[in-house]
Amino acid sequence: MSKQKVSIIGAGLSGSLLSIYLAKRGIECDIYEARGDMRESEMSAGRSINLALSNRGIAALKEVGLDDYMLSQAVPMYGRMIHNFDGTTKLLPYSGRSGEFINSVSRSGLNIALMNEAEKYAGVKFLFNEKCVDFDCKSGEAKFESGKIAKGDTVIATDGAGSVIRSAMMNGGVPRFNYSQTWLEHGYKELHIPPKEISDFKFQISDSKSDDSFQMEKNALHIWARGSFMMIALPNFDGSFTCTLFLAHKGENSFESISSGNFSRRLTQINADRKNYFDLSAKSAKSAAEISLLEFFETNFADAIPLMPTLVEDFFTNPTGNLGTIKCFPWNAGGKSLLIGDSAHAVVPFYGQGMNASFEDCRILNELIEHRGTDWETVFDEFTLLRKPNADAIAQMAEENFFEMRDAVADPVFQKKRELETRLEQTFPDYFSKYSMVTFREDLPYAVAKEKGNAQDKLLMEICAKIDDVSKLDLNEVIKKIKKI
Amino acid sequence: MSKQKVSIIGAGLSGSLLSIYLAKRGIECDIYEARGDMRESEMSAGRSINLALSNRGIAALKEVGLDDYMLSQAVPMYGRMIHNFDGTTKLLPYSGRSGEFINSVSRSGLNIALMNEAEKYAGVKFLFNEKCVDFDCKSGEAKFESGKIAKGDTVIATDGAGSVIRSAMMNGGVPRFNYSQTWLEHGYKELHIPPKEISDFKFQISDSKSDDSFQMEKNALHIWARGSFMMIALPNFDGSFTCTLFLAHKGENSFESISSGNFSRRLTQINADRKNYFDLSAKSAKSAAEISLLEFFETNFADAIPLMPTLVEDFFTNPTGNLGTIKCFPWNAGGKSLLIGDSAHAVVPFYGQGMNASFEDCRILNELIEHRGTDWETVFDEFTLLRKPNADAIAQMAEENFFEMRDAVADPVFQKKRELETRLEQTFPDYFSKYSMVTFREDLPYAVAKEKGNAQDKLLMEICAKIDDVSKLDLNEVIKKIKKI
Repeated sequence: MSKQKVSIIGAGLSGSLLSIYLAKRGIECDIYEARGDMRESEMSAGRSINLALSNRGIAALKEVGLDDYMLSQAVPMYGRMIHNFDGTTKLLPYSGRSGEFINSVSRSGLNIALMNEAEKYAGVKFLFNEKCVDFDCKSGEAKFESGKIAKGDTVIATDGAGSVIRSAMMNGGVPRFNYSQTWLEHGYKELHIPPKEISDFKFQISDSKSDDSFQMEKNALHIWARGSFMMIALPNFDGSFTCTLFLAHKGENSFESISSGNFSRRLTQINADRKNYFDLSAKSAKSAAEISLLEFFETNFADAIPLMPTLVEDFFTNPTGNLGTIKCFPWNAGGKSLLIGDSAHAVVPFYGQGMNASFEDCRILNELIEHRGTDWETVFDEFTLLRKPNADAIAQMAEENFFEMRDAVADPVFQKKRELETRLEQTFPDYFSKYSMVTFREDLPYAVAKEKGNAQDKLLMEICAKIDDVSKLDLNEVIKKIKKI
Repeated sequence: MSKQKVSIIGAGLSGSLLSIYLAKRGIECDIYEARGDMRESEMSAGRSINLALSNRGIAALKEVGLDDYMLSQAVPMYGRMIHNFDGTTKLLPYSGRSGEFINSVSRSGLNIALMNEAEKYAGVKFLFNEKCVDFDCKSGEAKFESGKIAKGDTVIATDGAGSVIRSAMMNGGVPRFNYSQTWLEHGYKELHIPPKEISDFKFQISDSKSDDSFQMEKNALHIWARGSFMMIALPNFDGSFTCTLFLAHKGENSFESISSGNFSRRLTQINADRKNYFDLSAKSAKSAAEISLLEFFETNFADAIPLMPTLVEDFFTNPTGNLGTIKCFPWNAGGKSLLIGDSAHAVVPFYGQGMNASFEDCRILNELIEHRGTDWETVFDEFTLLRKPNADAIAQMAEENFFEMRDAVADPVFQKKRELETRLEQTFPDYFSKYSMVTFREDLPYAVAKEKGNAQDKLLMEICAKIDDVSKLDLNEVIKKIKKI
């Protein structure tokens, strides 16, 4: 192939990984990033601090030789740790097999590792503080706030959910461009659980902390499932946890009701520790909003309060994020542009697959270039047809998993089903739950995982609704029924 | 209420009707229209020439006293006239009751009548050639290309599927604005069947033509249902028909395959008349695209060709339109703006309900103002909650009706079902088919018509799949089953 040059819009996770793939093929990459170099200044707020890296993402990193390094910087999570109202906890393993787990990684740590790797290639150039403001689908020219104009052999958009390239394709650039943006009624806010010993510890991804540093079980994704809302916590490499509170924007239990000081459920019981920690006299000096927040947490996440010394400050300082799904079609303007990752298919975070799906995009695109060369229109058309059904599948599963996490996870039938799935996975090497197919089977397209997984889920829920004790089930009978569908 | 002033964006059908409703309440209306005054110049291309006015639209016109006048200018259509390949036709009535029919009206005639009526009120002012370019959801100011800024007590957007107000609401004006645009693979092109005697007849809506002037049955909506595509024709008051060809943009039978000269099915039979009309020697002098067009028509719409002397010219001159569905939520930015009609819910035309739904919007909004006054935020919130499920229902039914029209209409089971529905309507005054509920029951919300109608359809199709002769069915048994659901 003749020497190609590609302009990549966005130096986030997908853009940085993609540039390595292309550079390995001898394709020159200019990567335009609206923000500054995150290696030189603090990362900006508004994005999640840690992410769950699983097999699809790992498979994509493996091909550029970064899998082992990133896993050495990650905290394995073997299951969901359910936190009940009374403070008791229960671990629901993600799989019945050892070796099948997900990994909490630092978003910025991963991004920096990818950028550093990309820069080892002579053909890769990062251009920071270059905000793309428009794209011409006919000429293929991307325009930047600085006045710069980029035009390589093609433009690949990795500029995320608010993609400027996609907007240009939608606003007349691509005829009959299908598009939807759908927002959940729930938003999210990140909160913080520090390591056990609070010191002037400075975040360095090369530092490893012993298990003693963590205030809760280190190797789990913690969930406080509360029906109409929930909180989760993922461990960080430094001994801290990043909590995310998912709560309706408006209504009874909501960001609005707390911020307006309207949440005030009379507490029936405050145990001594917590009474000591936030005693009523201290409350009286606080604002109505702060009292609302504390009462909301005491009612719902009592066991977490002692672990969160900066709860009030974090809650009222950190931004409230929105949760949306973006779908569109097609993903390319002929051979002039291609959307990949969030720019093509932003999903809600409840399956932990946003980044993994985007990394898989990069891997599949690389495979297509391997087979088809750099006839961009052909490659992009094929990529879109191949990936669109899978992007739609993970988008739907991610929305559905919100209900599973906030609600079903605390449901006895669901817990029995998870136990049954674990037992099946322990017994039958070729059985995979829906969660396992999505999370651990990088060889299985999302659409297939969804179809098979839904059929299995229906069957297993029916079985578990009728029984009290999963251990008494004949697993051979169950697996026979599963194989029939 | 204090004297209110409303800015309406768009002087199309909805905007003009709405201004009359508001003016009758003593509310001042400035109506900003991007184009010139259609009463002073030819109407612009790209919009359908005639529309099917049915009960929901008539009910809305009735309240401003324009129903009788508009019906006097309309051509009643009592059913669908099915055109088979061999030129034979069959009428499928819309209802088993007399008095239930739809009406073909001229879009521009109706629009002009509404504008003339509106201008009778002192508080109504039309401002033409004022193109809205932006809207500020906080201040409520609409900005125009001319530099003019409009700010009444509120802004109501009747600026259609490409609404500028909606774009402003979507692009940051309204947080978490849900939006989707979905396009069919099919586009449309308007074609023409002139009155029997072609003269230098000039279009005037006050002229009435006798039945003799029509080249086909006057009182029907004509359909050439051909599976993956179709043509329809609606009668005009002047004796002509406006045909609309619905065809895929790309693929085997498509606008592209015709325009690129790639459609060429070997004709097995050309009858003498048509052979005479477009004989093969004449074809040889034509371009490949023209030959493709003629062969496509000879294959699929042979009986229409002799009626369409300007077919070739019309096809290659008239634009190819796109068919899309637009959904969004919410429809208002607090009390600052409200979307109504196509700006809130553009639908595909296959149920003939686009205009009728928009007129119903105006009627319902007027009712809410009657009860709630001009607390715009309250009225708009309530309007949106009330109308959104109905807009979604008609959007879905319109998409589904495309398949019914192009495909099912020619299906024997479907024809039996229509016959059974007609018999039921003739026999039972309180029975209404789904089509009748949507089209003739202005008292029934679309969402209810959809739910009841789908249940009925399922039952009747099951019944008709098993029988040969509808006349042998016991109608009392059938109606009992219907009443059970």
